[in-house]
Amino acid sequence: MKQSVHKLEISTRGQGLYEFTATAQAWVRQQKMQTGLLTVFCRHTSASLLIQENADPTVRSDIQAYFDHLAPEDGPYHHDCEGSDDMPAHLKTALTQVQLSIPLMDGGLVLGTWQGIYLFEHRVRPHRREIVLYLIGE
Amino acid sequence: MKQSVHKLEISTRGQGLYEFTATAQAWVRQQKMQTGLLTVFCRHTSASLLIQENADPTVRSDIQAYFDHLAPEDGPYHHDCEGSDDMPAHLKTALTQVQLSIPLMDGGLVLGTWQGIYLFEHRVRPHRREIVLYLIGE
Amino acid sequence: MKQSVHKLEISTRGQGLYEFTATAQAWVRQQKMQTGLLTVFCRHTSASLLIQENADPTVRSDIQAYFDHLAPEDGPYHHDCEGSDDMPAHLKTALTQVQLSIPLMDGGLVLGTWQGIYLFEHRVRPHRREIVLYLIGE
Repeated sequence: MKQSVHKLEISTRGQGLYEFTATAQAWVRQQKMQTGLLTVFCRHTSASLLIQENADPTVRSDIQAYFDHLAPEDGPYHHDCEGSDDMPAHLKTALTQVQLSIPLMDGGLVLGTWQGIYLFEHRVRPHRREIVLYLIGE
Repeated sequence: MKQSVHKLEISTRGQGLYEFTATAQAWVRQQKMQTGLLTVFCRHTSASLLIQENADPTVRSDIQAYFDHLAPEDGPYHHDCEGSDDMPAHLKTALTQVQLSIPLMDGGLVLGTWQGIYLFEHRVRPHRREIVLYLIGE
Repeated sequence: MKQSVHKLEISTRGQGLYEFTATAQAWVRQQKMQTGLLTVFCRHTSASLLIQENADPTVRSDIQAYFDHLAPEDGPYHHDCEGSDDMPAHLKTALTQVQLSIPLMDGGLVLGTWQGIYLFEHRVRPHRREIVLYLIGE
């Protein structure tokens, strides 16, 4: 049994879903394990992770619009010193995930056909986001 | 240290919470480990996982009604080609989980007394859902 | 490769976010591992876990107020025998997490600068909450 860790940086250019399935899969393949568990961890409180449909792009735009509606910029927040998109960003992060774990079987992640791994950026301005990939297995 | 992986199929007959705690526990027992970590992964984007109260069934019906209200079928969605229950299904999946990990201690999962593991089906029509169970430990 | 498990109790005095980052980090350090994965598991269905900003306390009070608004006490619930804060507590638990996994790298958890680990208590009355910490690595 062995383990590997890797830091990944994703540059974002505004709110939305940024897919990094292929990057994660390529790193996993390099570790040459057959069975194991990949954990993806997002080191932020205003960006999060989501596994969602990778086919029709309107699913992603609908998800983004929905979360804007669910945690609007004009809510009755006390924390407003970092911009009107900051408190909604914390709420959207709380409502989704900062960590995902995906089993590895026969050398590949067990993602379903329509499942992609996304960074969900909640801030308007460009950011460099740090993701940690951790794999255990053999 | 060793690891085991297993695919599980759950047939659903419409929206709602389908408990599979006993199935997961039985498979875990067969692996004969004392300490470890079970990861449950749902390979879909319109069905999800939830750990919730296994006692009063009105908790489950209230949860289902609440998520129907939070992500209604008549929302302003652009993705509507797969039926009016499809986009709400993606949103309910985003708001809950597709993966859960539960530690194993003294040969048993550390679930609390009132915690059951549920597949949360968000589509109206019957589906066969694939769940992957991954256990590491000894 | 080795693994450790530990039960932690947190006494709550009403709704809100209770940080236990330092307690988790201290236990992890005692296990003297360099690389690994910490899993935090909450054994309840009316309290949950959240990784959130540990700087400005108004972020936490805004999060609490937001979830009160999203899952109000006066909702149309059928499950009301355990008090008006009980069903909202189950919903807030469903909308957040009962489990978090955080990679360990160079002997420390890879939490971001602003990330703290919180127990999110959703019940009004005092409770003793059980958290399980599970670490695997070497």
